[in-house]
Amino acid sequence: MAERPTLAPAVLDELAAALDAERVVTDAAGVDEFKDPYWIPGDDSYLGSAVVYPTTVEEVQEVMRIANRHGVAVWPHGQGRGGYGGPSPRVRGSIQISLRKMDKVLEINEELAYAVVEPGVRWFDLYDAIEAGGHSLQLTVPDLGWGSVIGNSMDNGMTYMPYGADFQLLCGLEVVLPTGELVRTGMGAIPDNKSWHLYRRGLGPSFGEMFAQSNFGIVVKAGVWLQRKPEAYVSVNLSVGQDADFEAAVDALRELRLAKVIEGVPALYAALTAAPQLIDAQVDFDLSRPLTDEELQAYADETGVGIWAGRTALWGTKAIVEAKLEAIRRVWEAIPSGRVLASKVYAPADYPDITLSTEQVQAGIPTLQLIEAQPPWLGHIGFSPIMPLQGSEVRFVMEQIRTRLREDGLNFLGGVFAFNERTACIVTGIPFDVRDEAQTRQAYASAKRLVQEVGALGYGEYRAHVDFMDEAQGVYDWNDGAYRRFAETIKDAIDPNGVLSPGRHGIWPERFRDA
Amino acid sequence: MAERPTLAPAVLDELAAALDAERVVTDAAGVDEFKDPYWIPGDDSYLGSAVVYPTTVEEVQEVMRIANRHGVAVWPHGQGRGGYGGPSPRVRGSIQISLRKMDKVLEINEELAYAVVEPGVRWFDLYDAIEAGGHSLQLTVPDLGWGSVIGNSMDNGMTYMPYGADFQLLCGLEVVLPTGELVRTGMGAIPDNKSWHLYRRGLGPSFGEMFAQSNFGIVVKAGVWLQRKPEAYVSVNLSVGQDADFEAAVDALRELRLAKVIEGVPALYAALTAAPQLIDAQVDFDLSRPLTDEELQAYADETGVGIWAGRTALWGTKAIVEAKLEAIRRVWEAIPSGRVLASKVYAPADYPDITLSTEQVQAGIPTLQLIEAQPPWLGHIGFSPIMPLQGSEVRFVMEQIRTRLREDGLNFLGGVFAFNERTACIVTGIPFDVRDEAQTRQAYASAKRLVQEVGALGYGEYRAHVDFMDEAQGVYDWNDGAYRRFAETIKDAIDPNGVLSPGRHGIWPERFRDA
Repeated sequence: MAERPTLAPAVLDELAAALDAERVVTDAAGVDEFKDPYWIPGDDSYLGSAVVYPTTVEEVQEVMRIANRHGVAVWPHGQGRGGYGGPSPRVRGSIQISLRKMDKVLEINEELAYAVVEPGVRWFDLYDAIEAGGHSLQLTVPDLGWGSVIGNSMDNGMTYMPYGADFQLLCGLEVVLPTGELVRTGMGAIPDNKSWHLYRRGLGPSFGEMFAQSNFGIVVKAGVWLQRKPEAYVSVNLSVGQDADFEAAVDALRELRLAKVIEGVPALYAALTAAPQLIDAQVDFDLSRPLTDEELQAYADETGVGIWAGRTALWGTKAIVEAKLEAIRRVWEAIPSGRVLASKVYAPADYPDITLSTEQVQAGIPTLQLIEAQPPWLGHIGFSPIMPLQGSEVRFVMEQIRTRLREDGLNFLGGVFAFNERTACIVTGIPFDVRDEAQTRQAYASAKRLVQEVGALGYGEYRAHVDFMDEAQGVYDWNDGAYRRFAETIKDAIDPNGVLSPGRHGIWPERFRDA
Repeated sequence: MAERPTLAPAVLDELAAALDAERVVTDAAGVDEFKDPYWIPGDDSYLGSAVVYPTTVEEVQEVMRIANRHGVAVWPHGQGRGGYGGPSPRVRGSIQISLRKMDKVLEINEELAYAVVEPGVRWFDLYDAIEAGGHSLQLTVPDLGWGSVIGNSMDNGMTYMPYGADFQLLCGLEVVLPTGELVRTGMGAIPDNKSWHLYRRGLGPSFGEMFAQSNFGIVVKAGVWLQRKPEAYVSVNLSVGQDADFEAAVDALRELRLAKVIEGVPALYAALTAAPQLIDAQVDFDLSRPLTDEELQAYADETGVGIWAGRTALWGTKAIVEAKLEAIRRVWEAIPSGRVLASKVYAPADYPDITLSTEQVQAGIPTLQLIEAQPPWLGHIGFSPIMPLQGSEVRFVMEQIRTRLREDGLNFLGGVFAFNERTACIVTGIPFDVRDEAQTRQAYASAKRLVQEVGALGYGEYRAHVDFMDEAQGVYDWNDGAYRRFAETIKDAIDPNGVLSPGRHGIWPERFRDA
């Protein structure tokens, strides 16, 4: 292991003057707090040099000005809880900007159903603020409530309710540009505009979505769209008992989404993933070897979860929810081994009674149940390719993934998410034992193999782990990498010193490209 | 009137060599075909020098290369039917690139419910191709079917079905950049990718929406999302009989949209606008003076249309449509003078029987009825500010507009559109008699006055007429014009010679800013 990366004293002095000495952290324990907990032990390829904790927009701007003066790379994160490498910077020795101390819920607008938050606000925090204010509003949340609302969204992370994907959650951003300048998107370009967090566009080109997954700016404030708590909420499990019905299940999800019967983001999990989430069953399999199809089918049958088991939910008036549930049954029960399991019809007053993780999440109640149910040694690494929401396509890619994982002695966790009415993402969580260095290394090697080999078949990742962002971007190479070259032309124009998140998702500023 | 603008012979020679001599048009009649029919007679501020008609992507690229070599501005359009100045270039003497001859429907995918079109494809053309293929698919359309699907979308034009606003219609663009280079957005950056027209993102920053309303590229190919024809379709008129209920009507639209009961883009029109559209009544008022409130109320009462009358529609299974109609009635009929008028429940087999314009449009059947019903002398100029979808806000802005129009001797046509569940746009069509030069000039002067005076109150346009794009952009001046400066930084990086649509929506390349 090389020596830990350090910053020049002049840089540290300027950071300490701009913030406060105690918000510029360089000791090993403080920096290691933002290491990916699942990364290969002893490998410090993605280790930062310091962590700074700004508390205001002006401090974020000042950090960027210091970075520009000294040509030092910075790597911002909200809570640092993201999968895909967590808070680890792509460039070793980067200054990590933790936005955890920018944690204010700035506004909750009941009538127009939105909130405005800073990037350190977690799902838990926003939920608590909504409840404390007595608002009849709910928030789409991911499986784990500890992450940053803005941070997750800026990674194109998904959640399960109608604003759960395709950049629908955030509206109206305030962004610190790489030079330290401040810009507002959409209607925010009009001073004190009342529609900033209501309408994503302005006049001329719209820039909101280009700040997601990019290294074009640091979002320091954003509107978050909320929903009224509906008269009726039903959580729905959709399963098939036989693997032969997988294609039909995927096609059914597409038809239900296209018809807008399902308006959230449904997921269809492999049995091992579904059981602890959907029916509260335990998994205590030995994952040191790949489980066979027979073992998986036996597990699915014993728990009753189904070999593929999914979830979605309905929100609306009682009559609309009932009509939609009927429409779901009509489609899903036409699948030979298809089974629909609906929860009771919850009214908002019933929400405190909800205890099952999946029912909480789809009611917008943040929780950590999913990770608390896991053994502490269980790490995972993600591979998440995009494909058409068609049974035949999803089957093909699923088999490509599972075959390679078995060859490599590994198991498949995860499932199929219908990101929109036409798109599937197979979110693969390759499980490994964090105490087992060999298995850990194998998992990362296998993930990189999947990126390249499944990528060569035309299936690109929607989000890539920091360890193989370049390989994942390499798949996007139509017309001699025209997309990447276009992104890098913009990068060079707005970040002339190449300091903000160099290499994020494979987009590099000029000084690194030349190196 | 100055002499008509001309191009240097060297430019014309190169264009003729790149295309064909007959697709490079410079005669007055040919160029005048792309003049705004409503513009001030005799004023040639926005007159082009030539019209070129490329037929292939390569020809568009070659036109851009020629423009770069000679530093000549170009101004592309699909059909040239857009309101807000039609096809007129902001910079006098620009080469107009008409994309009318790139008119191929390249693909219709029934299973995944999308089409791929070139920019010359009109709503009529795509509809005809879907019907000719026997597909059970429908397309959201605007009031007039003669425009370009891509062109309308690239102006952020709206339509009435669920994909009708907020850049939801197009997915996956092929774009000729100002330099002539070719780029594909989203999954199109992977060679031959099956998800190009299904998923808007890729890996890294997403650029789709930034090509709308911009001068960053020419879209030469795009995916268009379609919907399955539903089991049941109902067109719904929502009106209030008394002006005092206007606020309640706007708030009801918000609540119905937030609850996802209404999923299309509802509009609430002033009586004069509503009558010919929603109930087929005629308007033969003398618009040479402003009508009084009493006259408008009398007209609303006589025709029975309601002083404010809106439209929306429902699509789904019969049971879902019925449950939603019930939810609409519950909300709307709580308004004192509120009235809900639903059409019969149409099944797809009934569509050929539909004759009323509003019912056709909301069933995705393109038509020209609206313009055919207008007297030929009726011109209009638009002013379209964005505001919160709240009764009090919409009332305030509406009164600001109507008061000024009355002061200027003009009438208000148009209405309130709920672009999304939180945003209203008042689309003002100031009517004038194209034969009356004084009234025409007054209408343009009044529109510019509205842009500036209502803009100063914080209400910016979502789309501006070519004659006051700079004034409209001037409203977006937070932080010393940070948005415009950011847009122009990108403009300079990707269009170093400043040739593509200079000044579109107030974004200018460097060589014009310095002038």
